[in-house]
Amino acid sequence: MRTQVAIVGGGPAGLLLSHLLHLQGVDSVVLERRSAEYVQQRVRAGVLEQGTVDLLTEAGVGERMRREGEVHNGVHIQFDEDRVHIPFKELTGRAITVYGQQEVVKDLTERRLADGGRVLFEVDDVRVAGVDTDDPVVHYTHEGVPHELHADFVAGCDGFHGICRDAIPADVRTVYERVYPFGWLGILADVPPSSDELIYANNANGFALLSMRSATISRMYLQVAPEESLDRWPDERIWAELSTRLGAPGFTLQQGPIFDKSVTAMRSFVAEPLRYGRLFLAGDSAHIVPPTGAKGLNLAVSDVDRLAESIADYYRTGSETGIDTYSAACLERVWRVQHFSWWMTSMTHRFEGPDAAFDRRLQRSQFDYLGRSAASATTLAENYVGLPLR
Amino acid sequence: MRTQVAIVGGGPAGLLLSHLLHLQGVDSVVLERRSAEYVQQRVRAGVLEQGTVDLLTEAGVGERMRREGEVHNGVHIQFDEDRVHIPFKELTGRAITVYGQQEVVKDLTERRLADGGRVLFEVDDVRVAGVDTDDPVVHYTHEGVPHELHADFVAGCDGFHGICRDAIPADVRTVYERVYPFGWLGILADVPPSSDELIYANNANGFALLSMRSATISRMYLQVAPEESLDRWPDERIWAELSTRLGAPGFTLQQGPIFDKSVTAMRSFVAEPLRYGRLFLAGDSAHIVPPTGAKGLNLAVSDVDRLAESIADYYRTGSETGIDTYSAACLERVWRVQHFSWWMTSMTHRFEGPDAAFDRRLQRSQFDYLGRSAASATTLAENYVGLPLR
Repeated sequence: MRTQVAIVGGGPAGLLLSHLLHLQGVDSVVLERRSAEYVQQRVRAGVLEQGTVDLLTEAGVGERMRREGEVHNGVHIQFDEDRVHIPFKELTGRAITVYGQQEVVKDLTERRLADGGRVLFEVDDVRVAGVDTDDPVVHYTHEGVPHELHADFVAGCDGFHGICRDAIPADVRTVYERVYPFGWLGILADVPPSSDELIYANNANGFALLSMRSATISRMYLQVAPEESLDRWPDERIWAELSTRLGAPGFTLQQGPIFDKSVTAMRSFVAEPLRYGRLFLAGDSAHIVPPTGAKGLNLAVSDVDRLAESIADYYRTGSETGIDTYSAACLERVWRVQHFSWWMTSMTHRFEGPDAAFDRRLQRSQFDYLGRSAASATTLAENYVGLPLR
Repeated sequence: MRTQVAIVGGGPAGLLLSHLLHLQGVDSVVLERRSAEYVQQRVRAGVLEQGTVDLLTEAGVGERMRREGEVHNGVHIQFDEDRVHIPFKELTGRAITVYGQQEVVKDLTERRLADGGRVLFEVDDVRVAGVDTDDPVVHYTHEGVPHELHADFVAGCDGFHGICRDAIPADVRTVYERVYPFGWLGILADVPPSSDELIYANNANGFALLSMRSATISRMYLQVAPEESLDRWPDERIWAELSTRLGAPGFTLQQGPIFDKSVTAMRSFVAEPLRYGRLFLAGDSAHIVPPTGAKGLNLAVSDVDRLAESIADYYRTGSETGIDTYSAACLERVWRVQHFSWWMTSMTHRFEGPDAAFDRRLQRSQFDYLGRSAASATTLAENYVGLPLR
């Protein structure tokens, strides 16, 4: 089989890339290890930057998002029992939209299939070869039969645990990493969110986040030990701890049946460069951010937007400028987002160690400053709603 | 001997407090361990916030400062060979004034003596007693003779190594501290500064700061090991290292005779509360900041401004509100300044350890963001020129 762009990974990055290329007349094939059902039900991020919303809308895949997504014009930051409101719209003219990643995946899959796109699910033994030649090839097995997919370019959209990153030789690759000394215990519960907007809380017991999936489903998180066992967290303990950490005068946390629980490790990770020969990495395959800034999906969208444009430009004009500058241009945004995600994490989480008391006072001062300085609030707001995509 | 306010320490904090109290008709005595000459020649900070300049001017001790001090409307931040200019005046409407701390001390001493103020130099064996009673007393020896100074209030303006802080019992005191894994090697040189405005540089070799004492005297600093020996730094090595770290296209570092060299440790320190009974701490006796934000003297001035007003108000109206809220009100500013000083230090210095490469990328991203975001530049500018004093 032959295509112009072989896309490894059928999550939001791979599907959106395939769709954006299609809009510019470039052919692609998407190879996904999991089933369509799995990918569409995988619970992930739920906050879309303004730029992501605009891009999906312009690409014709934003119709349901605009109908069902909830626009939030601000966010709350809490320290102990005090809250500061950061009014995104007022400070930046932009906003965020709460719409689950799996809904974006559903919309993209539906559209790709309706447009006759080739998306193969449940492929195995995926292997990338010859990316430093003019004839890269992706080997894979589908329904027990081995295949070769020849392409002009290969896009590695296969996530942090994917195989594409390792196709870049170790001697040209630099890896930057920080592992945080805590994890997030996340729950989904059948109960309307107790706040119209997200609340990021820094409590002496640790971080908590009140978020939502919809008007009837709450999404909430607690800072826990990195390898915390869910056995230690029966529902009553989770609710008690959320109530404590999110507690503030006049606030009541609504409780309801918890139908999903998980623990996520917190990591910052960047592998440079994002391009090697005819292989391009996009999204989690090249970088991971801690979820505090809600940036993972948005950063993948930004990569893919640039990659689609660069490849389309190559086919349209023969110019290699876009593909040659892809890695450096993406990395500038990647590091901005890494910095913001680290900053949000540092400001809102509980840290241990000899300087813990000093650090907590600095956190308090940062919090007070957010509430008192328009400039400080604007730095949070403009990063949270997202800097312009290109 | 009896006075209304016994002031321990005749540096800028103690002298300014004595002067501000005098302006409000409150009597004080200043006790200083060192000689007048020593205090007036001790080289310290040289950057005055707008609020400090305004306060000294309003207090009638700013005449020479306004004539000889240099107003700076901005500062340069450098990363590798790239520079970003932060235009204070444009972003905040305010500026800083470069005028040495020892000049402030000279002006204050001269004025205190001209006004008949009692300032005793070279006192020994200073000891504070009874601060939790209505009759606090400061014991000291002057010219070999022991004395007792009875007062309504005692002000501890005796610096980090002073004796007043320890007059607050350990069980009511909380100490916050961070020691940085580096120091500053500072020089004074007989050569006009190579830049009109300060340059804070983050180089792979470490931090460097180009500053100035006057139009003909350069003041410069290099990040070194915390206990670095000056023997390892002959003049040629200092100039070579400054040239490397401050190197940028089109920039030439002017060299000249070095007439002062020293190494300073870098520390963040806060002892809470700032008041115990009739004892009040002000300036370095209660808090130390790393010099990166140029805040030490300014923070002392802010404490002293509030303390003078609180004590004067007590004598004028009998109200204890000012003295009761002194500690908490000061601490809010102290922690804002601690946070800013830590932030400036973190952004501009070289750090070692397992996350060093990751951290340096974050620093680069913070630097790029400063140059691109007016909000980010404003957070630096408004903290650097100083938030309003009260």
